Amino acid sequence: MRSLAILVTVLASSTLFHWLALGQGGQTETPIGPKWWPSEWGAEDQRGAANRLTAQNVLAARDLIKTGKVYQLGRLYEQDMPIPGKRHFSLTIPGRPTGGPNGKNKIVHNDELVSGEIGQVGTQFDGLGHVGVRVGGEDIFYNGNKLSEFGDTYGLKKLGVENAGSFVTRGILLDVAAVKQERSLPIGYVITPEDLDKALKLAKTDIKPGDVVLINTGHGFWWKRDNKKFNEGEPGIGLAAGKWLTEKKVALIGSDNWAVEVVPSQDPDRPFEVHQWLLTRNGIYLLENLDLTELAADRAYEFAFVFAPLRLKGATGSPGNPLAIR
Amino acid sequence: MRSLAILVTVLASSTLFHWLALGQGGQTETPIGPKWWPSEWGAEDQRGAANRLTAQNVLAARDLIKTGKVYQLGRLYEQDMPIPGKRHFSLTIPGRPTGGPNGKNKIVHNDELVSGEIGQVGTQFDGLGHVGVRVGGEDIFYNGNKLSEFGDTYGLKKLGVENAGSFVTRGILLDVAAVKQERSLPIGYVITPEDLDKALKLAKTDIKPGDVVLINTGHGFWWKRDNKKFNEGEPGIGLAAGKWLTEKKVALIGSDNWAVEVVPSQDPDRPFEVHQWLLTRNGIYLLENLDLTELAADRAYEFAFVFAPLRLKGATGSPGNPLAIR
Amino acid sequence: MRSLAILVTVLASSTLFHWLALGQGGQTETPIGPKWWPSEWGAEDQRGAANRLTAQNVLAARDLIKTGKVYQLGRLYEQDMPIPGKRHFSLTIPGRPTGGPNGKNKIVHNDELVSGEIGQVGTQFDGLGHVGVRVGGEDIFYNGNKLSEFGDTYGLKKLGVENAGSFVTRGILLDVAAVKQERSLPIGYVITPEDLDKALKLAKTDIKPGDVVLINTGHGFWWKRDNKKFNEGEPGIGLAAGKWLTEKKVALIGSDNWAVEVVPSQDPDRPFEVHQWLLTRNGIYLLENLDLTELAADRAYEFAFVFAPLRLKGATGSPGNPLAIR
Amino acid sequence: MRSLAILVTVLASSTLFHWLALGQGGQTETPIGPKWWPSEWGAEDQRGAANRLTAQNVLAARDLIKTGKVYQLGRLYEQDMPIPGKRHFSLTIPGRPTGGPNGKNKIVHNDELVSGEIGQVGTQFDGLGHVGVRVGGEDIFYNGNKLSEFGDTYGLKKLGVENAGSFVTRGILLDVAAVKQERSLPIGYVITPEDLDKALKLAKTDIKPGDVVLINTGHGFWWKRDNKKFNEGEPGIGLAAGKWLTEKKVALIGSDNWAVEVVPSQDPDRPFEVHQWLLTRNGIYLLENLDLTELAADRAYEFAFVFAPLRLKGATGSPGNPLAIR
Repeated sequence: MRSLAILVTVLASSTLFHWLALGQGGQTETPIGPKWWPSEWGAEDQRGAANRLTAQNVLAARDLIKTGKVYQLGRLYEQDMPIPGKRHFSLTIPGRPTGGPNGKNKIVHNDELVSGEIGQVGTQFDGLGHVGVRVGGEDIFYNGNKLSEFGDTYGLKKLGVENAGSFVTRGILLDVAAVKQERSLPIGYVITPEDLDKALKLAKTDIKPGDVVLINTGHGFWWKRDNKKFNEGEPGIGLAAGKWLTEKKVALIGSDNWAVEVVPSQDPDRPFEVHQWLLTRNGIYLLENLDLTELAADRAYEFAFVFAPLRLKGATGSPGNPLAIR
Repeated sequence: MRSLAILVTVLASSTLFHWLALGQGGQTETPIGPKWWPSEWGAEDQRGAANRLTAQNVLAARDLIKTGKVYQLGRLYEQDMPIPGKRHFSLTIPGRPTGGPNGKNKIVHNDELVSGEIGQVGTQFDGLGHVGVRVGGEDIFYNGNKLSEFGDTYGLKKLGVENAGSFVTRGILLDVAAVKQERSLPIGYVITPEDLDKALKLAKTDIKPGDVVLINTGHGFWWKRDNKKFNEGEPGIGLAAGKWLTEKKVALIGSDNWAVEVVPSQDPDRPFEVHQWLLTRNGIYLLENLDLTELAADRAYEFAFVFAPLRLKGATGSPGNPLAIR
Repeated sequence: MRSLAILVTVLASSTLFHWLALGQGGQTETPIGPKWWPSEWGAEDQRGAANRLTAQNVLAARDLIKTGKVYQLGRLYEQDMPIPGKRHFSLTIPGRPTGGPNGKNKIVHNDELVSGEIGQVGTQFDGLGHVGVRVGGEDIFYNGNKLSEFGDTYGLKKLGVENAGSFVTRGILLDVAAVKQERSLPIGYVITPEDLDKALKLAKTDIKPGDVVLINTGHGFWWKRDNKKFNEGEPGIGLAAGKWLTEKKVALIGSDNWAVEVVPSQDPDRPFEVHQWLLTRNGIYLLENLDLTELAADRAYEFAFVFAPLRLKGATGSPGNPLAIR
Repeated sequence: MRSLAILVTVLASSTLFHWLALGQGGQTETPIGPKWWPSEWGAEDQRGAANRLTAQNVLAARDLIKTGKVYQLGRLYEQDMPIPGKRHFSLTIPGRPTGGPNGKNKIVHNDELVSGEIGQVGTQFDGLGHVGVRVGGEDIFYNGNKLSEFGDTYGLKKLGVENAGSFVTRGILLDVAAVKQERSLPIGYVITPEDLDKALKLAKTDIKPGDVVLINTGHGFWWKRDNKKFNEGEPGIGLAAGKWLTEKKVALIGSDNWAVEVVPSQDPDRPFEVHQWLLTRNGIYLLENLDLTELAADRAYEFAFVFAPLRLKGATGSPGNPLAIR
C-alpha cells in the first residue's frame, strides 16, 4: 500500500499527470497557462485567426486601393541572407542550360533547384504547425493538437500551412521606429502597447477584426548590411503588446525582424513566448523578415494587404512576397 | 588562298556565322525567326510584359472586386503530384519536433525542409530566364540575353524571377472547355484563335494590355487522378493562339495544364515553340498547373488577379498560389 | 481510495508502466522480448558487433588475398534505381561547367549536388541508430539508448554511423540461390538455418567471430529490370536464420535485396522483426542492395571484405561501395 | 576581299581557330599546353591512372599488412566543417523517428536526409569530370572529352566517378611537415620535388606505378580549429612536384589540405593549375581533406591503401573514408 501511495504521489507531481488530465479535457495548467482549447472556431478548426477573414475584409481592403501603387514586402532569397541556426538555403541552376537544345526550334530551358527550410528562412509566414508547447510527454499546438498525433515525417497531417488560405484584408503599418524617432530600435527593445497606441495614432486609423498589422522596428536595416547583428537579437513586441494585438482580433502580425517579438525575451527563461501566445494559444499568424522600408518612407499606414502562402502540404510555414496595395 | 575561301565558305554556312552576325546586331535568322531584340521596353529591360502593369491596371482590377470572394488558384505541393522528367519534390519535417523544448515555457517548433526544382514543379510561374533558343553556340533568351553571359551556377545574373515584380491586374478566364462543351479537352487538342474568341464572347468582356488571361482546358481534371495521363500530353494553345494573345498585349497567360501550350506540338519537330514565342520573343509570362475548377464552375470570367512570385534571386521561375478576387 | 486503485490498475497494464520499470533498470518485457541491455561491450558502447573486429580479423582477411582480384559490391546510385516509400535521390550538375573559366589557364570545374536519404537508398549500410522499438512512450535502440535522449534534428547524438568504424575482415558468401538451384528465390521465401548450413558447406568454410556474411538470394536480378517487383517484397532470412547468424557472432550481414530479411515477414503482424533482432538487440550491422552477381558467378565464397562507412556525423546509415578482395 | 582577310585575321588570332584546329585533331596549343590526348590508355579510356591498378598492386598492398592496424583517413561530415564558396552540406533526421511504430513489434526507424555537393565538400575524391580547361568555346577534360558532349544536367555521360573503380594498392605517406620540422607548413608554401625526395627518404621506400601518395602538410591541423584560416589558402605541391609525381606514375595523390596543391598558386594568374596537370592532362586522381594525423604520428609511411568511391552515376567526385592498413 505504501508503494502505491508513493507511486501516486510521484505521478501527481509529474507533468505526466498533467497530461493525463489534459487528455481527458480537465482544466489544468500548462507551461504557458491554462488549457486554451477548443478554439473559438471549434474543436476541429485548423485555420485559427484566418477565420476572421471574410468577404467584408476583402471589400474593406479594396476600398483602400486608390492610387494603384503596389509594394512588394518580400525580400530576396539568396544564399548570403541572414539564416538562423542550422537551417540552410541553396539555389543552383542545374546544367547551363538545364535542357536542350531540342527540335528544329532548338529550344533550351533552365530550371532552378532549391534546398532549404524554405518556410523558415528569409521572408517567412509561420503557420499553426510551427510552434507549440511541451506538456508532460506531449507537444501541444494550436487547438490542443498533439504532435504525436498530427506529426508526420513527410508533412503534418493537421495544421499544415495549406489550411491557412489567403489573406486579402486591410493592412495597417505601425511604425514604431518613426514614433521613437529612430532609424532602427536597439536589439532587446520591448515594444509596448503604448508604443503601438502611439503608432496607431500616427497612422490615423484603428484596427478591426481580421486586419493585418505590420510593425516597423527598423531592424530590417541590418539585413545583409550586418547579418551577425541582424541575427543576434532584435527589437520587437513583448507579451503585453502581443495581448493588445490579440484583443484587437488581428489575423496576422508581420515585422521587419526575424521573430516579430523581442529577442532576447523579457523573461530570459521564457524564450519566444510571444510566439506561443499568438500562434499556439490564439491562432494568430506571423510574417517575418519583411521589407517595410518603402512603405514606411511613404508613410503608407493603411493599404490592401494580399498574401497567399504556398500550399505546401503539411508544411509549418511558407516563403512569400506579400503585397501592400494603395 | 583556296583554303581561305574554303574556310570562309564553311563559316558562312554555319550557325557560327549567324551568331557572329547576331553579336554585331545584324539582321539575321534564328531557329525561331528573325532577331527580335532589343525589346519594346529597351535593350536593358529584364521585365518583359510585366512592364504593361501600371497603376491603371491595378485600379481596373480593384473595380472588379464586388463580392469579396477569393479563389486560390495554386495546387497543393506534395510528393505524389505529377512531376515531369527528372525533377523532384521532397518535403520533410526535420525532427519531431525540429527544436525544443526550451525554457520554462517549454517551447517546441517544427520546420520543413524542401528539396526540388520548386519553380518548375507543381503550380509554377515561368520567368524570362526559363526558355531560350540556341543560335550558333549561344543560348539566346528574352531581349537577346546570352546564357553564356547571364548564366550563373548559383542564380542567373539577369532575367531572374525577382525582376518580374508583382501582378495586380485584371484577370480573364477563357473557358475553352466550356465553349467546346467538354469536361476536359483531349490531349493534343490545339486551341485556336477562334476558340479564344468564342470563350471571350462567353466571358462578355475584352482583353486589354496588361491583362492576365487564364485558359481552362479541363486537363487539370487529371491532376492526381491519373498522373501518367496528365503528364503524357495536354490540350493547349497553338502558335496562332499564342500570337493572338501577344497582339492583345497580355502580361501573363495561365492554364490548368502543365505547359499552357498544346503537347505534342503542332509541328512535332518544334516542341514547346509557343514557350519560345511568348517568353523568349515577347517577354510574356506563363503560369502552369493552375486549379481553375472553382473559377470555371462559378463562371467567374473577370476578376482581380493578384500574384507575386517569390523573389528567388536568379531563379528561372517561382512556385505560387495566385489569387482571383471578385 | 478506489480511484487510486483504478489509476494504479490502468497504469500497471499500460506500456507506460513497462517503461517506468525499464527506466529503473527492472527486468521486464518489451515488444521484442526481455530487456537486452547493457550490451556485452558495456553500457556505454556505441559500436555493437563492430567491436568484434580486431587486428586478427584484418590479418585473417589479408590471408585470403591470393590473386589480387577486386569486386565492387556497390550499385550505381541513379535516379531510376528502386527507391522505397517516400525517400528520394536527386543528382544534378550545377551549371555546365559549375565554375570558370578562371585565370590564364582557363580552368573550369564541375560539382555534383545530391539530395536524398543517402544512407537509406541504393546500396546502404544500416547503422545502430536506424532501427528501434517503441516501449511505452520511448523509442529504444541498441544498448537501451532512448531516442528522446540521443535523437537530434541535425544528426543523432549517439549511435551515429561514424561510431561503426571500418570493416576489414573475412567475408563469406552464402549463395542460397545456388543451393536452391534458382536464379532468384521467390518473394517471401524464408531463408532458414538449414539453407545457410548448406550454403556454408558449399563454401567449404566456417564462420568465425567478426566475419561478414553476404547472402545471395538472386533477388538483385530484378534491380532496374523490374523495380516494382524488386520493391514489393523479397526473399531473405527469417528470424531463425537471424539467430543462427547471431550465434556465429558475425559483425555484419549483407545481401542483394533491400532489407536482408524476408518481406513480407513470417509473422505478418511483426514487420522487419529481423532488423530489430540484429540491429537493436545484437548490434549486428546490415548491408543492403549489394551487387553479388560477379562474386556468385566466380564462386568466390571467401575473401577479404573491406568497407568503411562515410563518417556522416549522426547519420543512421551510409551509402557505400564495399569491396571483396581475393 | 579585304573584309574576308579581316575575318580570317580575327579568326586566326582567336581561341575559336584553336578550337577548330583541335576539333580536327591538329597539334596546337591550349591554355595548359599542347593537345594531350588521346591518353596512353586509348582514346576511349575513362579511367585514367586507375588503369595502373593491377592485381600485382593489390598483392603488393597485401604484403604491407603486418599488424592489422587500420587507419580511417576520412573526416566527419558535419555542417560546421570548412566548406568552400557557395557549396553547402545539410544533414537532418526527418521525423523523430522517421517511421513507425508499426506492427506488434512496434518497430521504429530513422533515416537521414542529406543535401549538398557531397563529392566536393569534406573528404573528397576528385574524378576526371571535375576539372578541365576552356579552349575556344569548348571545355576540354581528360582524354579530350568535351563538356558540350558528355555534360548532362543529371550526371555526366562520360568520366563519371563510377568509372574510376576501386583503389587497392600500396600507399606511401610523404610527411613533408615532418621533413620541414613544422606542425603545419605555412599557407602558400610550395612543396617542391626536393621536399618530396626528402620525405621519400624518410619513408625509406620508393614509389612504383599505381601507388597512392599521401602528402602530409600539417594544414589539416586547422580543420574546425580555424575554418577561416583553413579555407583561405594552404601549403601544397607546386607544378614541379606535380610533374615529379606524374613521372612516378602514381594513381592518386591525397593530402590533408583542401586542394592538394598550393593556394595561392605559384603563378597567381594560373589558379589550380596542378589540378589541370594531374586530372585533366594525366588522369591522376586527387583526394582532399584527409585526416593524416594518426598515420603521421605512427610514422606509418607504407601501407595498404583501400578506397572505393561511391558509384554516383555521372558524378564529378565522391565523398569517402579511405583506409590505410598495416
